[in-house]
Amino acid sequence: MPTLYDYLDSGNGYKIRLLMSQLGRHYRWQEIDIMQGGSRTPQFLAKNLNGRIPTFELDDGVCLAESNAILWYLAEGSRFIPEDRLARAQTLQWMFFEQYSHEPYVATPRFIVKHLPEDSPRRAELPDRLARGRAALDVMNTHLKSNPFFAGGRYTIADIALYAYTHVAEEGIHDLTAYPQVNAWLERVASQPQYIPITYRPA
Amino acid sequence: MPTLYDYLDSGNGYKIRLLMSQLGRHYRWQEIDIMQGGSRTPQFLAKNLNGRIPTFELDDGVCLAESNAILWYLAEGSRFIPEDRLARAQTLQWMFFEQYSHEPYVATPRFIVKHLPEDSPRRAELPDRLARGRAALDVMNTHLKSNPFFAGGRYTIADIALYAYTHVAEEGIHDLTAYPQVNAWLERVASQPQYIPITYRPA
Repeated sequence: MPTLYDYLDSGNGYKIRLLMSQLGRHYRWQEIDIMQGGSRTPQFLAKNLNGRIPTFELDDGVCLAESNAILWYLAEGSRFIPEDRLARAQTLQWMFFEQYSHEPYVATPRFIVKHLPEDSPRRAELPDRLARGRAALDVMNTHLKSNPFFAGGRYTIADIALYAYTHVAEEGIHDLTAYPQVNAWLERVASQPQYIPITYRPA
Repeated sequence: MPTLYDYLDSGNGYKIRLLMSQLGRHYRWQEIDIMQGGSRTPQFLAKNLNGRIPTFELDDGVCLAESNAILWYLAEGSRFIPEDRLARAQTLQWMFFEQYSHEPYVATPRFIVKHLPEDSPRRAELPDRLARGRAALDVMNTHLKSNPFFAGGRYTIADIALYAYTHVAEEGIHDLTAYPQVNAWLERVASQPQYIPITYRPA
């Protein structure tokens, strides 16, 4: 049985938990205390040189890193990745958008306000990160005016990737009321079969 | 014929130019002056909501964004993406690593010192970005101690994605002499058939 090394409050880890639930797949879940250096121990770095969760360990011990690459690995051949070549690339387009233009500006503010001390110098980063986060949410809102989901006209791993931190963006000060299409899409995602919330702790 | 909207000095754009050369494919090349707002015009935003190059326009006018998604679109079914499921995911793993842990810290310092005025306040970002860039180069160097390329044991689009900004990292103050495995890999990439340099301007 594969093992997911993860941290419950991580949106990147939640992506994998949500997809595994929707695929109906079983796995061992092992929480790593990233706030206490658990992802920087020699043992963990042997699994992922870059020292980050989520890391997914296959039955034979091979480890895969990067949440969106793990999603792709797990979803290939399933309904969560389109078959059409262009739609597959569009799925990846939105997943790269998520990691480059969204996560550092939607997820990181949440990390700063939720997990760092109130007097952390990293609070100085918030205005710039929030402005760039609003730009990413604007791009999403505009796309969703004419599309129910991000790629291929249906729910895919691009939606899972973008949902993970968007639905908790308000924990990082973002105000989602300005993005009605995003809100409607968040509801569409949350109504998918075998949906689980980010707070659901795997057995 | 497809059109690549690009900026000659962009490593992200160069990824597409290099792969197209190695695939032997023809395309129209249109330079966008990103320093003069060319990627933020209404016409350009209609092609890419996120306002970035490279953007790849297919024969039917559909546009694809995100350099690494364009690479995947172009390379599917070719020798530049492994066929094995795990190796495919590992290819993506390194491409997501590139966009999240490498590009902001290896490419952005180059942009700041090469394209912004000497008194730009963004110079204050350099120490932190360079430190994180060194961490990314360390991860690459360690991986390359036991692997000739990044995924699947051979040259793939993961190498193209990581090569684009690594090989010009010294233009962004990084010192590559500390990474011998990276240097040897840079030479292996530059010796691939149909290699072109970043300065090669498509007709």
